[in-house]
Amino acid sequence: MINGERKIASPLRWGMVGGGRTGQVGYKHRTGALRDGTYRLLAGAFDLDAARGRDFGERIGVAPDRCYASYQDLIAGEADRVDGIEVVSIATPNFTHYEIATASLEAGLHVICEKPLFFTVAECEEIAALARRKDLIVGVTYGFTGHPLVRQMAAMVKKGMLGDIRLVDMAYTHGFNAGDDVGAPEAVRWRTNPRTAGPTFVLGDIGTHLFYLSEVVLPHLKIERLLCDRKAFIPSREPLEDHATVLMHYDNGARGRLWVSSVDAGNMGSQRYRFTGSRASLSWSDAHPDQLIYEVQGEPSRILCHGMPYLEQESLDVDRMGALHTEGLGDSWANIYLWIAEAIDAKKRGEEEFLKTHHYPGIAAGTEGVRWLENCVRSADAGAAWVTYG
Amino acid sequence: MINGERKIASPLRWGMVGGGRTGQVGYKHRTGALRDGTYRLLAGAFDLDAARGRDFGERIGVAPDRCYASYQDLIAGEADRVDGIEVVSIATPNFTHYEIATASLEAGLHVICEKPLFFTVAECEEIAALARRKDLIVGVTYGFTGHPLVRQMAAMVKKGMLGDIRLVDMAYTHGFNAGDDVGAPEAVRWRTNPRTAGPTFVLGDIGTHLFYLSEVVLPHLKIERLLCDRKAFIPSREPLEDHATVLMHYDNGARGRLWVSSVDAGNMGSQRYRFTGSRASLSWSDAHPDQLIYEVQGEPSRILCHGMPYLEQESLDVDRMGALHTEGLGDSWANIYLWIAEAIDAKKRGEEEFLKTHHYPGIAAGTEGVRWLENCVRSADAGAAWVTYG
Amino acid sequence: MINGERKIASPLRWGMVGGGRTGQVGYKHRTGALRDGTYRLLAGAFDLDAARGRDFGERIGVAPDRCYASYQDLIAGEADRVDGIEVVSIATPNFTHYEIATASLEAGLHVICEKPLFFTVAECEEIAALARRKDLIVGVTYGFTGHPLVRQMAAMVKKGMLGDIRLVDMAYTHGFNAGDDVGAPEAVRWRTNPRTAGPTFVLGDIGTHLFYLSEVVLPHLKIERLLCDRKAFIPSREPLEDHATVLMHYDNGARGRLWVSSVDAGNMGSQRYRFTGSRASLSWSDAHPDQLIYEVQGEPSRILCHGMPYLEQESLDVDRMGALHTEGLGDSWANIYLWIAEAIDAKKRGEEEFLKTHHYPGIAAGTEGVRWLENCVRSADAGAAWVTYG
Amino acid sequence: MINGERKIASPLRWGMVGGGRTGQVGYKHRTGALRDGTYRLLAGAFDLDAARGRDFGERIGVAPDRCYASYQDLIAGEADRVDGIEVVSIATPNFTHYEIATASLEAGLHVICEKPLFFTVAECEEIAALARRKDLIVGVTYGFTGHPLVRQMAAMVKKGMLGDIRLVDMAYTHGFNAGDDVGAPEAVRWRTNPRTAGPTFVLGDIGTHLFYLSEVVLPHLKIERLLCDRKAFIPSREPLEDHATVLMHYDNGARGRLWVSSVDAGNMGSQRYRFTGSRASLSWSDAHPDQLIYEVQGEPSRILCHGMPYLEQESLDVDRMGALHTEGLGDSWANIYLWIAEAIDAKKRGEEEFLKTHHYPGIAAGTEGVRWLENCVRSADAGAAWVTYG
Repeated sequence: MINGERKIASPLRWGMVGGGRTGQVGYKHRTGALRDGTYRLLAGAFDLDAARGRDFGERIGVAPDRCYASYQDLIAGEADRVDGIEVVSIATPNFTHYEIATASLEAGLHVICEKPLFFTVAECEEIAALARRKDLIVGVTYGFTGHPLVRQMAAMVKKGMLGDIRLVDMAYTHGFNAGDDVGAPEAVRWRTNPRTAGPTFVLGDIGTHLFYLSEVVLPHLKIERLLCDRKAFIPSREPLEDHATVLMHYDNGARGRLWVSSVDAGNMGSQRYRFTGSRASLSWSDAHPDQLIYEVQGEPSRILCHGMPYLEQESLDVDRMGALHTEGLGDSWANIYLWIAEAIDAKKRGEEEFLKTHHYPGIAAGTEGVRWLENCVRSADAGAAWVTYG
Repeated sequence: MINGERKIASPLRWGMVGGGRTGQVGYKHRTGALRDGTYRLLAGAFDLDAARGRDFGERIGVAPDRCYASYQDLIAGEADRVDGIEVVSIATPNFTHYEIATASLEAGLHVICEKPLFFTVAECEEIAALARRKDLIVGVTYGFTGHPLVRQMAAMVKKGMLGDIRLVDMAYTHGFNAGDDVGAPEAVRWRTNPRTAGPTFVLGDIGTHLFYLSEVVLPHLKIERLLCDRKAFIPSREPLEDHATVLMHYDNGARGRLWVSSVDAGNMGSQRYRFTGSRASLSWSDAHPDQLIYEVQGEPSRILCHGMPYLEQESLDVDRMGALHTEGLGDSWANIYLWIAEAIDAKKRGEEEFLKTHHYPGIAAGTEGVRWLENCVRSADAGAAWVTYG
Repeated sequence: MINGERKIASPLRWGMVGGGRTGQVGYKHRTGALRDGTYRLLAGAFDLDAARGRDFGERIGVAPDRCYASYQDLIAGEADRVDGIEVVSIATPNFTHYEIATASLEAGLHVICEKPLFFTVAECEEIAALARRKDLIVGVTYGFTGHPLVRQMAAMVKKGMLGDIRLVDMAYTHGFNAGDDVGAPEAVRWRTNPRTAGPTFVLGDIGTHLFYLSEVVLPHLKIERLLCDRKAFIPSREPLEDHATVLMHYDNGARGRLWVSSVDAGNMGSQRYRFTGSRASLSWSDAHPDQLIYEVQGEPSRILCHGMPYLEQESLDVDRMGALHTEGLGDSWANIYLWIAEAIDAKKRGEEEFLKTHHYPGIAAGTEGVRWLENCVRSADAGAAWVTYG
Repeated sequence: MINGERKIASPLRWGMVGGGRTGQVGYKHRTGALRDGTYRLLAGAFDLDAARGRDFGERIGVAPDRCYASYQDLIAGEADRVDGIEVVSIATPNFTHYEIATASLEAGLHVICEKPLFFTVAECEEIAALARRKDLIVGVTYGFTGHPLVRQMAAMVKKGMLGDIRLVDMAYTHGFNAGDDVGAPEAVRWRTNPRTAGPTFVLGDIGTHLFYLSEVVLPHLKIERLLCDRKAFIPSREPLEDHATVLMHYDNGARGRLWVSSVDAGNMGSQRYRFTGSRASLSWSDAHPDQLIYEVQGEPSRILCHGMPYLEQESLDVDRMGALHTEGLGDSWANIYLWIAEAIDAKKRGEEEFLKTHHYPGIAAGTEGVRWLENCVRSADAGAAWVTYG
């Protein structure tokens, strides 16, 4: 159980790009990073509006002279300080990730970046090479996978409690974009424009969460073939999609399906996952994240509760609230930020052995997410045809 | 509300083929037909084992001399009586439906048949022509669609309460066949053998329920293209499937997906449906059939309860238990049997006008189910390729 | 599993008093009694309005000359026939139960009566003595207790799967009487008038269901002390109550609480039960009657589904629909009517041994329900004081 | 919506007594206090084992010289510093609250204390007088009431959306103490000993949460009479209780019932609340805290989701994660800690007007909790008799 005792030698000196007052996601980064003293927020370029960004920075406790007008200023300004930041989080629209990450790594900063990581696998691989060269960590904020019951699922699959995996069923749908985008806020508009969002809307925005979680739970499964059918029910979003269905054939013969939508009017069910093996299945939804449903064929359904002693140690180790006390999304982000911090700390100390087995969403995970998106787009553009995964 | 008052002039003289002691479905037919005095069970060929069938018949109140050894004997024997049966239900394995239906119609009997109706659309059309020629009704026991909340969904869609339909999401999965069929009961074995089951296993066995219910709720939507990916996780079931995913493009631009499986180990969730329009959505599952979830984008989710005055009159008219009192699957079958009886009664009295608008699962519904299966198989056999619906 | 095969030698010749077109409960009796050929409905005095009662009787298949204007006519008329009824159901307002039951038993008819049975324990004991003298059965329609999962609970408790019983928590609340009774239908008005309803409103109307079910599940527990706090939120209902809380101390040290209300505005949750022992607990609600929640302290919660092979045989024996297929309230009533028929059949054949262990809601159960009501009223009238149960 | 922007002029200098490595609740305090830079944890006496406390303190980032061996040392040591703490949290067993609070206030420190606050109302009033005299704030960590949907309930009741309140139904039960205490950890043992726990076990430990939340939602209701029936199913816990039922009569005629238990074997449902008025009801449970069920009699049940624009502004103002993203118990604690910080900040600046309407669990709330406990014990000790609330 996590009780705030420091897992790393000393707090990381941390800065942010984006995540200011008008952003949707900045607080998730901060509430994840700051609760345990693992990170100290010392600098930021929080807003394209420099004055607003400075005001905001001050109000979250950043010294005025370390509230910068741009990411370039941030990198330059911090580089000049002996107490300059060592890690930066990128919480900006997708199209800026690559250039900010590149500049940050070049400047010797570890990077924590929003998903989808970049526009192309090629970009991912460039960044991976750069990070390798500079001996730096790149983390990706797949925020939901920090939940203790995600760890529990992975541990149960690993122990063979499901038998051979046969079926993977995942969905993340909501209806917040059921209407058109006339008058929509900037946070919607950049997501529906290929120049700023990249080659996908909902596939990248929410589908990558599903895909990464499935990789965490089922690391041994590889996709062989994939079919993606996507569509924009609001035509102004074309060529991007607000709805997509993906079918997947895995190398062990398993079958997967995945559904993402932002036009599923009224849906408040959020993400849901079901992993079925030859013997049993697991179901989890972030609508009721504290419950994991474990169903062995022919036996009563079981509902497992986070924090209970019958869970696997991997899960209990990362529990924060204890049974009967709700783990929130912020707790999940806190775990993600902690695991990335442990990676950075190990990297700083040269502990490559630790890094070989340490579980956190890093550059490889981010790259696989972008690869999956590329395959989806390739299939969709071929008329929702089957493509060999590559 | 239904309170047992007779809807037709006099009870129908009814017989059964199959549905004996070892069958799974016979009681559902009887409990649906017999509770309100709409049908009187007078004869049957309940079992391939004639002695067991006779013993069984007597124990459910059929006169010994009207417990027949075969459907041929039943038809012949009853034809000789002035009080002979006028309608026969077919609750036998799929491969016998066509010959029994043909013989029954030829003998002047109305027919009520299990789904999937026949093996091919051509057979369906032959039977339709025969029924037309003989002026007889053919009903199909899509037993779940008799629920008052299915009527409610159809009425709400018709009134435009969802807006334009965009998404159709349906699943019917269970895990009862997660293991192999060694030592399985006959009811499993005939379903996994193409000679006795026809061209599909789970698509026909449970998928047709999903498809027909979607037709009831969304009668104005037509499938334009379809893709079906099917697989037998238990190889002995090949070329039939124990898992299938179907994607559908509708003529109004809507997107559908459907999943059926009998290897979804541990799943007790049964059928679930979600219909999403541009404004709102409806969700219904027979795991909690007394609840209908209605979600208007941007408003609180609403849970509608069967039997409540706020429902549409079409739904209240067919409610049997009243709000807070569970409608069971038997009540749903009772409605299906009642609606078919009303069709037969109208046919007997020559009321063709009534029949033009009367809602019940008849030969057309059965035919469309088989057509859908044919399209699924055609797509699956082409490597899970998109096919133009036809 | 029940499949309609007759459990008794020949169908019972059955009549009804009340339960006509305007009644709420008549159809529940008929749909329970008639589905399996255990009863044949041959006569009735369905309505105080004789013409409406006759029209109704004919429409549910009763011969016109056996549709009587009053229960007196029914008893007299049927006594004159060789094929006269042998059992009568009483589905009339409470205040008529005693006189109709007395007359019926005197005439040699078995009786099936709505709850609460009579106004006083003294009346119950008179009727019990009369039935004993005439060698007749009195059954009480506690309709919910026919559900297979109620049997399951009783069997699990009996096997000691909960450990020593400590806590009993029951509630049956709805909001249908949250408003006042101005303009209310007759079915509400007689229930809120002590002359026609007897000494209680919701305690008798719905509380007796809770109490009887607890007796079925926990037959070994006896109440030692009881406290009842009742109130009419709608003053016109005084001295009857539309809300009551009852606390109970059992002889083994267990503690019980029970809540009934018809002013619980908006509540659609209906009945819910929780039985907790030193080791585990059971929860069941008729809002989701196909699920039984079994929770062993320190283990995952288990959800048991009716009809599954892991259940106790006592439960499987009375299942009608099979797993995944909803058992409705009508199925539960069908079991109650079947068990009473088995008692009548045994009584007819003089099988007193069978009757000693046969489980059905009879005169003893009805008497205990009235005794409980008397204790509740005694406590309430003493200012919600503790009273020794007697 | 809360995004971490500071609500007070500068972070509070904060210390803790208790809450060390072996405690259950310390992390909840810290994760609530530290995420937004509102508090800075500078000192502590974390553990009775001074060495372990120091090690722990260092590992959560407290300077070694400010990790004290006792609360007395903490107070003395910090008093000597110019940067000494200004507020202290007390997360120790109940019997120490009074002396630590007294000493802290005497030393000029604001106090944040676990519930139940003290053993007697008299102690509460002494502390209240002391705090008043010293012009200091006392906050009480009723951690669940910080959830945005608790605010929502209060706002809806205030607007009259329920009508006149009639029924209050609350429960907080679990089974973690279903077995005896042999070998139990210290955190259980001190709670079941009247010397360390005070006059109650579960009533104080979990019942006060229920009571305070009801006061927040229904501030206008006053208890007139109360009855408490308590029992220790594990005899070694006597005279304390591991089960209690409380009935309450409110001054407006409403009826309340409350149930607390730590022997409700298997229960993982945690807290649940239902508030019913003449028109509608609200149900909330911390098992699914992101949902609020709003049921208007005669209309479909509505499920409200935190963070949605249709909620009251009071609720949206304190939302942290946004709709579809789980608010955890830590987020709720963060709000409690924030509201107390705002009170302290206002007190420091002499803004008494702000304090008059500012909502936070302060000394008055803590006192009312203890008063309620005193009334419960008085009733229970009189044989579960009705007592006039006083």
